[in-house]
Amino acid sequence: MIESNSNKKIKELAALQRSKKEREQAGLFVLEGDRIIRDAVLTRKELVDNVYVSATYASSKGLPVDNALIVADSVLSHVCETVTDQGILATVRQEPLLRSEDELMKKDRILVLEDIRDPGNLGTIIRTAEAAGVEAVFMSSGTVDIFSPKVVRSTMGSLLRVPFTYSRDILETIKNIKECGHTVYAAHLKGASDMRKTPFDARRAIIIGNEGRGISDPVADLADKRVFIPMQGEVESLNAAVAAAILMYHE
Amino acid sequence: MIESNSNKKIKELAALQRSKKEREQAGLFVLEGDRIIRDAVLTRKELVDNVYVSATYASSKGLPVDNALIVADSVLSHVCETVTDQGILATVRQEPLLRSEDELMKKDRILVLEDIRDPGNLGTIIRTAEAAGVEAVFMSSGTVDIFSPKVVRSTMGSLLRVPFTYSRDILETIKNIKECGHTVYAAHLKGASDMRKTPFDARRAIIIGNEGRGISDPVADLADKRVFIPMQGEVESLNAAVAAAILMYHE
Repeated sequence: MIESNSNKKIKELAALQRSKKEREQAGLFVLEGDRIIRDAVLTRKELVDNVYVSATYASSKGLPVDNALIVADSVLSHVCETVTDQGILATVRQEPLLRSEDELMKKDRILVLEDIRDPGNLGTIIRTAEAAGVEAVFMSSGTVDIFSPKVVRSTMGSLLRVPFTYSRDILETIKNIKECGHTVYAAHLKGASDMRKTPFDARRAIIIGNEGRGISDPVADLADKRVFIPMQGEVESLNAAVAAAILMYHE
Repeated sequence: MIESNSNKKIKELAALQRSKKEREQAGLFVLEGDRIIRDAVLTRKELVDNVYVSATYASSKGLPVDNALIVADSVLSHVCETVTDQGILATVRQEPLLRSEDELMKKDRILVLEDIRDPGNLGTIIRTAEAAGVEAVFMSSGTVDIFSPKVVRSTMGSLLRVPFTYSRDILETIKNIKECGHTVYAAHLKGASDMRKTPFDARRAIIIGNEGRGISDPVADLADKRVFIPMQGEVESLNAAVAAAILMYHE
């Protein structure tokens, strides 16, 4: 049993929770939660690197995998990000989750995220994307790290199911999406078309911009249509996850 | 100039930021941000109790009201909740914002919130409600305090514009709403009607439930229609603010 916070593996876990750089170097991120980890070891075994359980978890629920590492309760809590931790976490490989752009281009329903910065927003968008039937998510390199603990948590498991990738050059990516036959809709406060009066094409990409400044001009210029969500009162903009949800659920 | 964290007014501000009980006893809450406070003192003067500005703010921007209290920068930062504070906050009266149920019943477009617990969700819902044209919000007594700093911040000003109240007995309130001629729609995972196939009546109330357990059975039983938002993939539920947004923007 691992009993010290200074154990090498515990230090690695803490580093993965803390730093994007550490996650990238290791090619791993941390998943927390009983059900999602049990699901992953059953159905996505290739994703799972190591499973860690607390001593209490091990004695009450048994090991989800034979080679799970048992950790003293207080030591595991120390590296858990969730307030009410369930005594189980896993290190998961990033690489199988990061799809190729070519593969994603083939899908009909695409979401493009330009520089979403808030982890809760990104997580909620990924969760909503799965529910809305989005088949591929492209993120600009300025988008917050999808493998950071708060994003992972707020996707509520959708992170393992919605195909996504980071684009090196988002302008190039959008050009390619258009060449693949998608109509590109940009959510824009100064959009020309009221989304309510704009039926979306079946083969489509929706672009959502940064929380503060929206979609950048070069990206907006590439869109086939700039659409706005009608707003009453004195509201200046909607929350990015809310705007994304309304557009993803628009037919 | 106030120069100490132990100044009586600073201690009161800290207490208002920290505790619902303190806010209720004083009948006040704290608003932060330059533009919203300048707007409030111009257009909603009856709401504003005191304005506090940092010494830096006072010397660069002047006083938004003649009787603004000037506070040493570090002391004001100490009671600001926002990370990048703007050197200005105000204490604002709760009472003029809490409308009577009778007044709100008269409105056509009503939102009912049952036990929303997450401050960010409540704030985002209030912000979206204004944009979507909701005219009245009823909250169950188990809903998080709308005057807590995180809710106030995430409403982005809509808190001062969307009429709302807390209901002592949410079942009684919903009965009254029905008697006032509203069709009551409950967002329900086990809803009978796909919201996409259910046009909403003009005079309507939409009920959104708690993040974890949804709408309680007694509340759901009162609804005229239980509607569900169609979900693909393995998603079990949508974020409460996302579900509320999709339904508030539904025609």
